[in-house]
Amino acid sequence: MKPGGSDGPHVFVEDLDHLELRDEDHHHLTKSLRLRPGDPFTASDGEGSWRICRLGSGPEGEVEPVGEVMYVEAPQPPLTIGFALIKGGRPELVVQKLTELGVDAIIPFTADHSVVRWKPDRATRQTERLRRVAREAAMQSRQVRLPEIGEPTDFATLAAHPGAIRADITGNPPCLDHPTVLVGPEGGWSEAERHQLGAIRLSSSVLRSETASITTAALLTALRDGLTATS
Amino acid sequence: MKPGGSDGPHVFVEDLDHLELRDEDHHHLTKSLRLRPGDPFTASDGEGSWRICRLGSGPEGEVEPVGEVMYVEAPQPPLTIGFALIKGGRPELVVQKLTELGVDAIIPFTADHSVVRWKPDRATRQTERLRRVAREAAMQSRQVRLPEIGEPTDFATLAAHPGAIRADITGNPPCLDHPTVLVGPEGGWSEAERHQLGAIRLSSSVLRSETASITTAALLTALRDGLTATS
Repeated sequence: MKPGGSDGPHVFVEDLDHLELRDEDHHHLTKSLRLRPGDPFTASDGEGSWRICRLGSGPEGEVEPVGEVMYVEAPQPPLTIGFALIKGGRPELVVQKLTELGVDAIIPFTADHSVVRWKPDRATRQTERLRRVAREAAMQSRQVRLPEIGEPTDFATLAAHPGAIRADITGNPPCLDHPTVLVGPEGGWSEAERHQLGAIRLSSSVLRSETASITTAALLTALRDGLTATS
Repeated sequence: MKPGGSDGPHVFVEDLDHLELRDEDHHHLTKSLRLRPGDPFTASDGEGSWRICRLGSGPEGEVEPVGEVMYVEAPQPPLTIGFALIKGGRPELVVQKLTELGVDAIIPFTADHSVVRWKPDRATRQTERLRRVAREAAMQSRQVRLPEIGEPTDFATLAAHPGAIRADITGNPPCLDHPTVLVGPEGGWSEAERHQLGAIRLSSSVLRSETASITTAALLTALRDGLTATS
């Protein structure tokens, strides 16, 4: 069972047995969404468990449990999307959309034709930023699992994942035997990268890199949810 | 045959027999992409035809035909996505992504729970702006057809399209019997709207309105291209 249908406020907490809201989430519930004491919402630990809660009447933003803790099995297989860092790329957009769609791991990487490389201190700041984007998107889309947002890595590390494959217009139809998909830079894949991994095709069109990532997420989650079938 | 593989510059012209570039496209080819006289590119009329051309050597940006005019049959069925106007919505993002994916008609509409309504003069300006976004996205994704970007309309008009259906988390799997999909506002559908049209489901997650539009385009174009099958 997923948290309380398709609407109502949803937040993440550290511990479902000792409910405490982050200040920013308390603010979001009471100021942006205008919840009042007694109003219900759902809380999740980001690892598959959730429960119904309500705002307490105390001044400190206490939260009271209402329902039991429920657990949602993780959908199988877990899906990983690696996206190449690119100049002018919009990693926030990619992370937001992939989180909404329920991708399990989202990992930036440097491809041979990536023009952009993040230096270590920038990589740390950017990863923290992308994790905040993912948390907000997961709240809004009522996920019970937070995706893993990986530190930037390289092609070879992602290519070593079981079933890893590249997205490429010359590839085969997507299928869940390849639950890890690498989306390349707009400059395309290098010969070495092409040689190393097979490819799946997402569209008959030439997609921007960010669109290719979102399309991969849409097609693989639909296959996983049984909304479409392998061709 | 689609225009010359997956790379190389691609522009739209009024008439493939009398090749003339718009100033902005000439600027794009010669300044941004740094084409020189003699360099090849492809031009399309936006209605299914295209040919290989090259930049002439004259000062006026003449264009010389190289190949014959080729025609690409329109994929069937044509796909229409209506998206509800919403506060803070990103119609440019929706139009850009849907154009890249090859959606044939993209039409904003006012749903019962749309908070936003465009006044006539704003609607005209916005429609012109969205058409420019579509043209740029179609050039980048090497389309031979420009999508129809409709003037803002209402639910009833779109609901009257043959096979029209709503996107809704309680719906059935998508299929090409329903090639016109209406994507609602984040406030959800009204009872009247629910009553009027059936629904397809795009994801097991609650998607933002813009994400639902892009996901609809990804799933329907993949079904149309035979990359996935109906479940």
